[in-house]
Amino acid sequence: MREESAQAGSEYDVVVIGAGAVGENAADRASRTGLRVALVEEALVGGECSYWACMPSKALLHPGQALAAAAAAPGAPPGVSDPVDVHAVLARRDEVAHHWDDADQARWVEGAGLTLLRGHARFTGPRALHLESAEGDIDLQARHAVVIATGSAPSMPAVPGLRGVRPWTSREATSAHIVPERLAIVGGGVIAVEMATAFADLGSVVTVLVRGERLLERAEPFAAVAVARALVARGVRVVLGASATQAWRDDAGDVHLLVVHSDLVGVRTRGTGPATVPEDLVVDEVLVATGRRPATDDLGLEALGLTPGDAVAVDDAMTARDVDGGWLFAVGDVTGRTATTHQGKYDARVCGDVIAARFGPDDGEGRAAEAGAGPWSRYRASADAVASPQVVFTRPQVAWVGLTEADARHQGLEVTVLGYELADLAGATVISPEYAGRAQLVVDTARDVVIGATFVGPDVGEMLHAATVAVAGEVTLDRLWHAVPAYPTVSEVWLRLLEQAGR
Amino acid sequence: MREESAQAGSEYDVVVIGAGAVGENAADRASRTGLRVALVEEALVGGECSYWACMPSKALLHPGQALAAAAAAPGAPPGVSDPVDVHAVLARRDEVAHHWDDADQARWVEGAGLTLLRGHARFTGPRALHLESAEGDIDLQARHAVVIATGSAPSMPAVPGLRGVRPWTSREATSAHIVPERLAIVGGGVIAVEMATAFADLGSVVTVLVRGERLLERAEPFAAVAVARALVARGVRVVLGASATQAWRDDAGDVHLLVVHSDLVGVRTRGTGPATVPEDLVVDEVLVATGRRPATDDLGLEALGLTPGDAVAVDDAMTARDVDGGWLFAVGDVTGRTATTHQGKYDARVCGDVIAARFGPDDGEGRAAEAGAGPWSRYRASADAVASPQVVFTRPQVAWVGLTEADARHQGLEVTVLGYELADLAGATVISPEYAGRAQLVVDTARDVVIGATFVGPDVGEMLHAATVAVAGEVTLDRLWHAVPAYPTVSEVWLRLLEQAGR
Repeated sequence: MREESAQAGSEYDVVVIGAGAVGENAADRASRTGLRVALVEEALVGGECSYWACMPSKALLHPGQALAAAAAAPGAPPGVSDPVDVHAVLARRDEVAHHWDDADQARWVEGAGLTLLRGHARFTGPRALHLESAEGDIDLQARHAVVIATGSAPSMPAVPGLRGVRPWTSREATSAHIVPERLAIVGGGVIAVEMATAFADLGSVVTVLVRGERLLERAEPFAAVAVARALVARGVRVVLGASATQAWRDDAGDVHLLVVHSDLVGVRTRGTGPATVPEDLVVDEVLVATGRRPATDDLGLEALGLTPGDAVAVDDAMTARDVDGGWLFAVGDVTGRTATTHQGKYDARVCGDVIAARFGPDDGEGRAAEAGAGPWSRYRASADAVASPQVVFTRPQVAWVGLTEADARHQGLEVTVLGYELADLAGATVISPEYAGRAQLVVDTARDVVIGATFVGPDVGEMLHAATVAVAGEVTLDRLWHAVPAYPTVSEVWLRLLEQAGR
Repeated sequence: MREESAQAGSEYDVVVIGAGAVGENAADRASRTGLRVALVEEALVGGECSYWACMPSKALLHPGQALAAAAAAPGAPPGVSDPVDVHAVLARRDEVAHHWDDADQARWVEGAGLTLLRGHARFTGPRALHLESAEGDIDLQARHAVVIATGSAPSMPAVPGLRGVRPWTSREATSAHIVPERLAIVGGGVIAVEMATAFADLGSVVTVLVRGERLLERAEPFAAVAVARALVARGVRVVLGASATQAWRDDAGDVHLLVVHSDLVGVRTRGTGPATVPEDLVVDEVLVATGRRPATDDLGLEALGLTPGDAVAVDDAMTARDVDGGWLFAVGDVTGRTATTHQGKYDARVCGDVIAARFGPDDGEGRAAEAGAGPWSRYRASADAVASPQVVFTRPQVAWVGLTEADARHQGLEVTVLGYELADLAGATVISPEYAGRAQLVVDTARDVVIGATFVGPDVGEMLHAATVAVAGEVTLDRLWHAVPAYPTVSEVWLRLLEQAGR
């Protein structure tokens, strides 16, 4: 067992703070040239994604998705539309979240030859940390490098009374064992729309309060509209331009949200017109999903001259920009440059490889390769800015990679935008007469390569990787013309999009 | 209306014989520089794929796929496993096949500015054809080019009595309006396994008789085994090493097949051991799916010095190799080089573009570009040999592109084979605890590029295009490392496969 007592081994080659998926990857790869790596975790090994984000949320979302797809298929028996067995969905979610027990993941860490240290670490100086642990405090020294992989935490808007109603964050939503009859969701991002979808499936009456004019602000507008419309069609109340100004829980245990509607009102249901008097929205629970902030407030960053609470800015080798000596690294949400598990893990692989090469026993080759590494080498996270994918597991799903049209134009690029309705494809026709969706490519006109792609449709999540390969691979449209999509699949949309580009 | 009477317009710039999807594409693109193109069809405009292959078969297959996926989802209501509404499935299939009415497609041909000639065309000499039509015969002269796009027809094995029982071919199977209680399928290729899946879903007791040792001989062996096991698990009897030696229909209308089992017996059900006495298999219908042959027997090929019934060999510009003058082209199944609609359409796009450039009004640019065209230009069907995809819509689906491991080794390439079980992915876990499948990449070690990929799993059809882009785009594994799959999707298998390759 490598889970050492806190007394032993206070010096390591590398210390990684945070044993989520991202920290695990950084630590694992950093250790590959023989460096001795400690992995510090104050909560569960496996982190947010395994227990309170990606995994449990998808376990909640998938059954609704699969049942809707079946119900849309011609000849489906009527029973396919019977209510989902909520207990069974939650039970499977519990399994997927390993019942919030990290024994398996801790065993993996051990098997990978890493040292797991349980506790909370704070910097006391360069390469120096103090670990506060239930088993006794300890000073930690990193001989070569420290990696911050502490992720992010939910932001809580400054609404009077909100904290007092004990609002849900993504953690409580994804791990809920009771489905509230009435759920308010504050926010319009990925967590908000995914949880709106999941809890509507599970039977909640859901109201989504969005401060701005649209959902999913990082996605293409047409994708956001499709998700909003679909939520509304399933009975979710989506209120745009809405701000909660006060919150309280009454004696009956109901949560009240005083909601002010601006004039920026778009999609809404139940005939609620633009309102000037605040609405008293009464629900059983409120989920706050208004963004996340880097989890750096209590890491002792001040000892390094950094500002607690801020993101740790890094270069493409994941080396901290604002700390001298090249020993500090950061990966994942904490950098502010990526906000998804997969991209954080990608950063982590780069980071681990850089550390292993820079500080590992010098075989000459690795160190030289890293020192001379350019973009798109294994030592540079070149994809972050240009080919980062995201799948939103709503119904329809939304999947994108790279730049939106607006992003690209904002960067001054001359772009051609290609779009196609998926319902017009033979491959969609055979799935269901109700199939609806859209695909869009943003093409850099000068380089003749795809720099952004967005797909909206019932099951487009697995279609995204083709675009990610095209974007990251910088495959020209002339060559993509020879990548023939199989007929009749929905992927045939690639052919239609390229035809639009004059092929 | 451009559907001219047979008396008018006997000279065209280009004549395309066969108005299936492939012929339509060739004609459409050939006409783009202003050439006058006639499209000859003796049956339905839209061809095999629209009415008797891809489209109706997928309409029959999709409901079973969607319902199985739903039934595997945690919390699915029991009613999801109720029998499919056969009538509704067949009715939707009828819609998808446009009730075998080609009015819409004929309108498309007209709208595209092509001349549709209905009838049967035979060569009388170079660029000269005789059209036999219900509206009167006519001689056709092609000023520049003739394209043969007549597709393929089912092969019928020489089994005594077989023709007499009026066996189904893929046409009768995909257009069936009665679901036979007992169906025998002779053959083990794509049509055989897809129709076994569809008719088992619709309630038939299905027996698949395969002469060889395995199903899907062009696929990776592991894919064939997965399909065989799944069919058997759903009650389909799959008999390998089985040959029908005689067939007859008895007075009650039942079909008898005398089946001889060789010793090459693999997967089988119901405890049937290797048999030496022929089995009298009694069924209601028998589907013969033992391969297809080029539909060239009645085209007057002898007038060109070619052999009727043979494939028309072409180069990468789709120009017939064995006819002088560069005026004869062939595309699709008839060439023997591709056997799928999508790849035939790809050939057709190349062919049409070549004709438009070579023979169209000379704007200089197009003609020069075509004359100097190299591999991977729009004028060369470079993907056929190296990046042709196929999706088999069985359960699990099987999807592949490029070379199998055996093909690659047979070509003398040094390859690395990477494989991963899809059930081990987080993205599969959230779909169903029962999720099973496998992905495999064949990597050309010298060039560090993927040259073949195979996916087996419940819904891998849409995952294939990522591999097709990688293969056709010749994206190196070093670069694919930066194409990050979204978490948690099944596409994350790309990461696992690349990790296996030492990334």
